[in-house]
Amino acid sequence: MSIPASLPLRNDLKGEEPYGAPQLDVPVCLNVNENPYPPAPDVVDTIAERVRRIAPTLNRYPDREHMALRRAFSDYLAKESHTRLDPEQIWAANGSNEIMLQLFQAFGGPGRKALGFAPTYSMYPEYARDTFTQWVTVPRNEDFTLDVDAAIAAINEVKPAMVLVTSPNNPTGTPLPMDQTRRLLAACEQADVDGADDGVHPILVVDEAYVEFRTPGVPSAVTLIADHPNLAVSRTMSKAFAYAGARVGYVAADQGIVDAMRIVRMPYHLSAVTQAAALAALEHTDEQLSTVAHLRETREATAQWLGSLTYKGRPLTVAHSESNFVYFGLFDDRDFIFNELLNRGVLIRDVGPDGWLRVCMGTDEEMATFRKAFVEVLELAQKEA
Amino acid sequence: MSIPASLPLRNDLKGEEPYGAPQLDVPVCLNVNENPYPPAPDVVDTIAERVRRIAPTLNRYPDREHMALRRAFSDYLAKESHTRLDPEQIWAANGSNEIMLQLFQAFGGPGRKALGFAPTYSMYPEYARDTFTQWVTVPRNEDFTLDVDAAIAAINEVKPAMVLVTSPNNPTGTPLPMDQTRRLLAACEQADVDGADDGVHPILVVDEAYVEFRTPGVPSAVTLIADHPNLAVSRTMSKAFAYAGARVGYVAADQGIVDAMRIVRMPYHLSAVTQAAALAALEHTDEQLSTVAHLRETREATAQWLGSLTYKGRPLTVAHSESNFVYFGLFDDRDFIFNELLNRGVLIRDVGPDGWLRVCMGTDEEMATFRKAFVEVLELAQKEA
Repeated sequence: MSIPASLPLRNDLKGEEPYGAPQLDVPVCLNVNENPYPPAPDVVDTIAERVRRIAPTLNRYPDREHMALRRAFSDYLAKESHTRLDPEQIWAANGSNEIMLQLFQAFGGPGRKALGFAPTYSMYPEYARDTFTQWVTVPRNEDFTLDVDAAIAAINEVKPAMVLVTSPNNPTGTPLPMDQTRRLLAACEQADVDGADDGVHPILVVDEAYVEFRTPGVPSAVTLIADHPNLAVSRTMSKAFAYAGARVGYVAADQGIVDAMRIVRMPYHLSAVTQAAALAALEHTDEQLSTVAHLRETREATAQWLGSLTYKGRPLTVAHSESNFVYFGLFDDRDFIFNELLNRGVLIRDVGPDGWLRVCMGTDEEMATFRKAFVEVLELAQKEA
Repeated sequence: MSIPASLPLRNDLKGEEPYGAPQLDVPVCLNVNENPYPPAPDVVDTIAERVRRIAPTLNRYPDREHMALRRAFSDYLAKESHTRLDPEQIWAANGSNEIMLQLFQAFGGPGRKALGFAPTYSMYPEYARDTFTQWVTVPRNEDFTLDVDAAIAAINEVKPAMVLVTSPNNPTGTPLPMDQTRRLLAACEQADVDGADDGVHPILVVDEAYVEFRTPGVPSAVTLIADHPNLAVSRTMSKAFAYAGARVGYVAADQGIVDAMRIVRMPYHLSAVTQAAALAALEHTDEQLSTVAHLRETREATAQWLGSLTYKGRPLTVAHSESNFVYFGLFDDRDFIFNELLNRGVLIRDVGPDGWLRVCMGTDEEMATFRKAFVEVLELAQKEA
């Protein structure tokens, strides 16, 4: 980074760095919560074929409203969450990053606040910063579950335009039980919004980026959309769907919220190639999701294994996760653990409260490498102590 | 659009509509300045092949820094503008829309101003609105050339963080001569910025979306980057390059400006599929640009032809264009002309100052249809009068 002082960089951006985990060339990458299983050859065939089919039209702009893709997501949610939504209740963008940015652009801004529950996804403050929205957090319980009473008190006190909950939460993996989602929705529907007229209430954004990894049978917040015009549920193809490279996120919400996002979206934000690639993968939904059950088992086994280990004489603490990663601690010096794992070719993530580390579920081979390396590193830490 | 009053939509977005030309199913679309010639079969082959090649990696996030693509754009500019830039002086995004938004996000914001010269591209006020930047305009001369003295006076008086010039301008087609660009740069390098420290100067953004259609031999503002750290030149593959559907814009600028954009970009904003598709088309640069010379001829012929016509006894006025569209008027009732052309299956654009219309260059067949329809509509307008 080298930004000359003569450039009119926004004052509040001075000294900031581009967001993102280090991109290192390491044998085992368990740091950005990807699905480690690549698309199967027949999925690759469909992707190439569908892109070939639209390539002769690429001199023309894409469908701004990406209706075919919104219909496909409607079908996906009907199957995955047993909820049929209209295509008008769905909206896609270049990753759920862009979905969240559009929500902040539509509902945030100077004088507006967004409320979240820390520790949580580290991009939220960036969306807020990029839209001049004030980011306010309420701490979670010690086990990373939501303190719903404190959350509701904060909604009434802060009067945010947006309330953000993440289920499962990142980096902790904590799911939000449906009765808590309902209580938050009820609170939002009564609360005022600072900087808005009377009768305006906060929206509740449930970020379900990792939701496909939840315990089977547990309902998604998508099931509540029909009854709650102030609810937006953000989703992505980047995690369980094993399609991070294609950058496709989407939101399910009442049409009013989608229409608000349509005002602030860049025209033609979603390319014809992205639309075709997303549709191609959605044709292979069962195949793309076929690894989810195994990754869930890997998570359970990894959490149990980590919980059986000791660090400097104390058992490790492992947060309950319904995601494809496990959050564990507490380390006096997490940088040491992180760096020694990296020395052994294993990249995990040092994120969230001090003392905790996050490891994403890889293939069986990758997890074996992680375990072997981690045992060595724990022993080393013992000696250092 | 149906946004319930209970939603906390930003107050300044109330009543706003999503930006964009009508997407109508019409035989002849001359409304959004696309290149009418589709990619050739061998280009289609390369696109499909390159996407197939990266498809097995799509479970992983893309290269956030898209270095291969930045190197390819560096090669492109070396050839197209005879200027070799480092990849670090180039940055790509999902359309030049996103490039401009990132520039506004980095340098605009509350208390900051952006200065433009009307009539000009109708998205600029939207970038400003989306980033809470104040959008200030100075009128162009009657022939749509820039009033450089007035521009420089405004730079000193308004103290904007960003000065936006479009060359060729949209919707008028007007080029900005290099000596005028140099005078604007010199003015920016002396001027103060409202809301910033002393010694901070405005950046000059030259939007060269249509620059490949300029008179051959005329230099691009890209040639000035080495000497001007406050200059950003925005480009796109959507126009001459015939790749609107892929949504790839880019900027060439000093690394400081690129670094500022890297702070505000969404992580992984550019998908692996988009990077592969862009690289594929850039392998066929000569082919993709092979229609530009003919479209230039079409523009000259169309401008001359329009200038030979009369409307209600007065000759039509045709703005000098170095782009792939022609701006013409003056019509007492441009809606009538627009709608009657539409009735004849020809969609053009009613944009900019009242009385003027913009027609984009299509294929020879499309232009013949346009001419036939326009003659009929002019006759009809005569009768109506």
